[in-house]
Amino acid sequence: MISVGIVGASGYTGEELTKLLVNHPEVELKSLTSKTYEGREISSVFKLDTKIPGTFKSPSIENLKDCNVVFFATPNGIAMKMARELLDSNVKIIDISADFRLRNPEQYNEWYNMEHSSSDLLDKSVYGLPEIEGQRDRIQNAKIVANPGCYPTSILLAILPIVKLIPQQTIIIDAKSGISGAGRNLNSNKLFNQNGDNFQAYAVKTHRHYPEALNILNDHHSGLDILFVPHLSSMQRGIFSTIYLQTENLSLEEIKTKFHEFYLNSQFISIAADDEYPRISDVANTNKCRLAIKKTSSNYGATNLVIFSLIDNLVKGASGQAVQNMNIMFNLDEKTGLN
Amino acid sequence: MISVGIVGASGYTGEELTKLLVNHPEVELKSLTSKTYEGREISSVFKLDTKIPGTFKSPSIENLKDCNVVFFATPNGIAMKMARELLDSNVKIIDISADFRLRNPEQYNEWYNMEHSSSDLLDKSVYGLPEIEGQRDRIQNAKIVANPGCYPTSILLAILPIVKLIPQQTIIIDAKSGISGAGRNLNSNKLFNQNGDNFQAYAVKTHRHYPEALNILNDHHSGLDILFVPHLSSMQRGIFSTIYLQTENLSLEEIKTKFHEFYLNSQFISIAADDEYPRISDVANTNKCRLAIKKTSSNYGATNLVIFSLIDNLVKGASGQAVQNMNIMFNLDEKTGLN
Amino acid sequence: MISVGIVGASGYTGEELTKLLVNHPEVELKSLTSKTYEGREISSVFKLDTKIPGTFKSPSIENLKDCNVVFFATPNGIAMKMARELLDSNVKIIDISADFRLRNPEQYNEWYNMEHSSSDLLDKSVYGLPEIEGQRDRIQNAKIVANPGCYPTSILLAILPIVKLIPQQTIIIDAKSGISGAGRNLNSNKLFNQNGDNFQAYAVKTHRHYPEALNILNDHHSGLDILFVPHLSSMQRGIFSTIYLQTENLSLEEIKTKFHEFYLNSQFISIAADDEYPRISDVANTNKCRLAIKKTSSNYGATNLVIFSLIDNLVKGASGQAVQNMNIMFNLDEKTGLN
Amino acid sequence: MISVGIVGASGYTGEELTKLLVNHPEVELKSLTSKTYEGREISSVFKLDTKIPGTFKSPSIENLKDCNVVFFATPNGIAMKMARELLDSNVKIIDISADFRLRNPEQYNEWYNMEHSSSDLLDKSVYGLPEIEGQRDRIQNAKIVANPGCYPTSILLAILPIVKLIPQQTIIIDAKSGISGAGRNLNSNKLFNQNGDNFQAYAVKTHRHYPEALNILNDHHSGLDILFVPHLSSMQRGIFSTIYLQTENLSLEEIKTKFHEFYLNSQFISIAADDEYPRISDVANTNKCRLAIKKTSSNYGATNLVIFSLIDNLVKGASGQAVQNMNIMFNLDEKTGLN
Repeated sequence: MISVGIVGASGYTGEELTKLLVNHPEVELKSLTSKTYEGREISSVFKLDTKIPGTFKSPSIENLKDCNVVFFATPNGIAMKMARELLDSNVKIIDISADFRLRNPEQYNEWYNMEHSSSDLLDKSVYGLPEIEGQRDRIQNAKIVANPGCYPTSILLAILPIVKLIPQQTIIIDAKSGISGAGRNLNSNKLFNQNGDNFQAYAVKTHRHYPEALNILNDHHSGLDILFVPHLSSMQRGIFSTIYLQTENLSLEEIKTKFHEFYLNSQFISIAADDEYPRISDVANTNKCRLAIKKTSSNYGATNLVIFSLIDNLVKGASGQAVQNMNIMFNLDEKTGLN
Repeated sequence: MISVGIVGASGYTGEELTKLLVNHPEVELKSLTSKTYEGREISSVFKLDTKIPGTFKSPSIENLKDCNVVFFATPNGIAMKMARELLDSNVKIIDISADFRLRNPEQYNEWYNMEHSSSDLLDKSVYGLPEIEGQRDRIQNAKIVANPGCYPTSILLAILPIVKLIPQQTIIIDAKSGISGAGRNLNSNKLFNQNGDNFQAYAVKTHRHYPEALNILNDHHSGLDILFVPHLSSMQRGIFSTIYLQTENLSLEEIKTKFHEFYLNSQFISIAADDEYPRISDVANTNKCRLAIKKTSSNYGATNLVIFSLIDNLVKGASGQAVQNMNIMFNLDEKTGLN
Repeated sequence: MISVGIVGASGYTGEELTKLLVNHPEVELKSLTSKTYEGREISSVFKLDTKIPGTFKSPSIENLKDCNVVFFATPNGIAMKMARELLDSNVKIIDISADFRLRNPEQYNEWYNMEHSSSDLLDKSVYGLPEIEGQRDRIQNAKIVANPGCYPTSILLAILPIVKLIPQQTIIIDAKSGISGAGRNLNSNKLFNQNGDNFQAYAVKTHRHYPEALNILNDHHSGLDILFVPHLSSMQRGIFSTIYLQTENLSLEEIKTKFHEFYLNSQFISIAADDEYPRISDVANTNKCRLAIKKTSSNYGATNLVIFSLIDNLVKGASGQAVQNMNIMFNLDEKTGLN
Repeated sequence: MISVGIVGASGYTGEELTKLLVNHPEVELKSLTSKTYEGREISSVFKLDTKIPGTFKSPSIENLKDCNVVFFATPNGIAMKMARELLDSNVKIIDISADFRLRNPEQYNEWYNMEHSSSDLLDKSVYGLPEIEGQRDRIQNAKIVANPGCYPTSILLAILPIVKLIPQQTIIIDAKSGISGAGRNLNSNKLFNQNGDNFQAYAVKTHRHYPEALNILNDHHSGLDILFVPHLSSMQRGIFSTIYLQTENLSLEEIKTKFHEFYLNSQFISIAADDEYPRISDVANTNKCRLAIKKTSSNYGATNLVIFSLIDNLVKGASGQAVQNMNIMFNLDEKTGLN
């Protein structure tokens, strides 16, 4: 059994993670911490079928150092402060916050308005998108896994299979997120009456998931940029990214073959039939990513491919992917606890 | 008083139109036709504060020929069959269906799978987007006004002010529509449980609003194409188009000045402040179009402008614009009955 | 012109009220106060077609004493502190908060956990439900109008027409409210993801609208009690109250006649046809109340009447009714500014 | 392995049932019939992780007679015509339609406007609500199980534990259903734009679930009637019944004890804490029923208990309960395949 700790267990992400792990056959939930609920019975806060014994603890090293792995489902800035001591106690870390996603501490500082307090650990962290080529091995050997953001997950899964076959360009990403995207903390932008029966864009040029996604793309193809425009849609969960890009001299069949080959061993990814338009409900509450690829043509335009990429932002975009990473780190089948 | 007839008064569009016209100070609702409700008291079907006397009639020329203007809120293929006889009786026509939107009968045939039965009348119809330069004069003198589709309205209003200042290109249009987009006829794609809390794309390359919008753009700039990708969002009303295009050597300030000048006399169009992200609720149930313009930059990419264009698909995208056109045809203030 | 002040103009209720008053032909908006936005341009916060000049002011007597009438769209406890000085300056008061709804200061203390600081003014306040018999005269002469709560409005309008014809009983009120019911202040119960696609009950026995509604009922019939169970439904606006009561020896026709007579001069109230089931969308964004009356029978049960009462909680349940009250106080037609 | 057939597999209920059974460890899906999809690959219609091989078949006896059990997820009137031949082939039947719910063929005729073609089989059918005392034994020995309606399930589970302890009365049931309640067939009442952001009542006195629920109550207490008022709420799934009844001389503690004892072996039923207000999201997509019990008191009123009963109408109210019944009929643990 894997002995697990969760820091920040009572936010959206922490709760989703707890729900997944409580039914994971190889996991023992040893230490759930929450500043909000410290000292309260876990079962009085989480109404789960499988009762979790004990109380929420304070997020101290003492309460976490006997775990095999600790998940951070916290705001940014926490994991980087606690990481070293946990590593020293031989605890593996899966950070669902953004602290270890950008390898360059200056870039972190620029986008997150914080000094990175453990910049020397950035090199030791592995970006936890298992579907990247060769990444499963790196995750398996990692001390720290930086669990990807929800938008980058949906973006990268749609582009990486063909990243080396496309010319230099700026890829346009028109992304639509459910309202849970921004966590449980109170914010008037998340009120029912601001979002029900509504639609809006936000954060053009300023969203922190832009540098994160771009870094990974540039690892594989330095001549790429992205223009990322996020929107809020009246739904609880889900990210629907519509991706516009240019390929050269490839038929739809050839492109689809690349995708199928790339995801041959990736059980969570599937490609829709040519005439299918997948819906968010196809992936909601699952760790799946569903992709649909449409070939287009137009006069005077470089874009000839539109890819729809659908995930559940709280599962494949956060907690589910974190569990998938844990499974890989501990040599379990990737799908364990994720059905 | 303008004596008005409506063919197809009981669909979504017809009902919206009736609601607007019943409170229009210069309109007498003379003849409402409906195949579904023929013979039934209008007031038993429409629960309006201002009761409309009389019954729904059958859609015959006899029942319409004494009107000053007849609106078609029908499926495609009806207006083109009845137009000539109405024109012969000196009745003006505002067609909210698509019969007179495409000036080339072969293009109509290709996209609507129907022979156009009055192709000689296509030249006499005027495209009813009053905000096009010089269009108000043409509408005022028109016998037939082809009321634009909802998507083309949102697209054209966002591009026309700068259409002559942009280089040859394919403009990407990522459009999101509320569920009312497709009318009231029964269709499993409009069920609550298919659309509530959901999101999907549809009709890539096949949507009939593509040639309609492109024709008008090409009237002003032959070197343009559009890549149009419509989506369905969990909201009742509204179209939110995100438009990606390339300008050259123009600052945001200069671009906004172009828009303000272009819309100087267009009271329904407004431009959001630089830091504002308008929401569909800002335009729902109004004849307004709200535009927001964001300048971006990226490496290797031509797109440097993102424009958000928001309308209510049932008002500015259909019935409201039809009333606006009627006001122009009868020399009334454009906003009469539209507040 | 009536010179109007609004204290707390930037909450939900204040904003709705401002939207109504800005288009009211007899109103000059003289003083809008907001602690949150003090000093900011009103037009930068409220995106209205008719721009309101000037800035939000601080809520001081000085800023309000030259108005003819001041509305309180504030949390409870504010109006009672400012009322006396305003009355001394000859300013009329319409309080949309609860400070003047309960005539007994001890009852106020019990239900609102506050001492009433102006208990001597309670006798001078008039309950602002104009549809109560004789109430229009009292409102016209009032210095302070206590604008009713949303639930009591929907309850009382459904019962008062027959209150004297029913036997002693406890009337069951199963009420469903949209999420805007509880105002704009941040509260996790109002988050989209807590309320979208969901349903729950709340506040059995503890809702403050219970004593308010009961007091008015008891004014007309001392042998009545109510069992009030409020629920939250996934909609933005609206209250739908289902009311179960017992009448004796009255046919549905006789009951409907009582309602029609009672509301003969009440233009906002309408009674649905016998076979009709009104929807919240019938009253949303209006000052209307729509009632539907169903006769039932059962063995062993006293209840033989089910009444559905539908209002928009933000209009007839708050700001719209406040404007209606102002119209009465200043001898205007009751519907002025409310169409 | 249990060899299973499903008649009407492509409706909402049939699809939910298929989703449950495809992952049931003891079930082999032998024969799925669908008039709509006859001949089509099952995997092209149902996008399930576990692919179901083969095609949809026509609903003939020949295609079903080798199954151990056949589920009817059909409109009413089908199961009663096919039942006898299946029984003769030694096939057990679980009917999710209403054909075997009412034991009196005249009552069936009255409420369903159809002659019952197999009235002699009504006596052999067992009402499939396993939580009724002694019912598990009857279900285990049944040839035909009549799977209960969704509303009756929510009503009966809230009342049966105390049915013998309450005086003669009419119990008021104010029930709110999600939009999926009425199946997948097209109907304008199920359109997104009729139901989104809305609320309404329907079918007072005429809903067919009234006699069904009442019959079972009267089996245990002849002096009861119910007044059942169903409503439609803007949510996809779920039934929330608010139940008003009178008990005598019992404390909340005593009542809760009765419930806990009654449901001692019923793993799907749970009772909320005294201060808790359960939400539909607590039971959505599960086979659970969650009950909350509130003691009230009022003057002049008999009602002193309000019970909230929450289920997912498509699971515990239909397919989930059908699987639960199958598990009992085949001596499996009741929860098999339902986690």
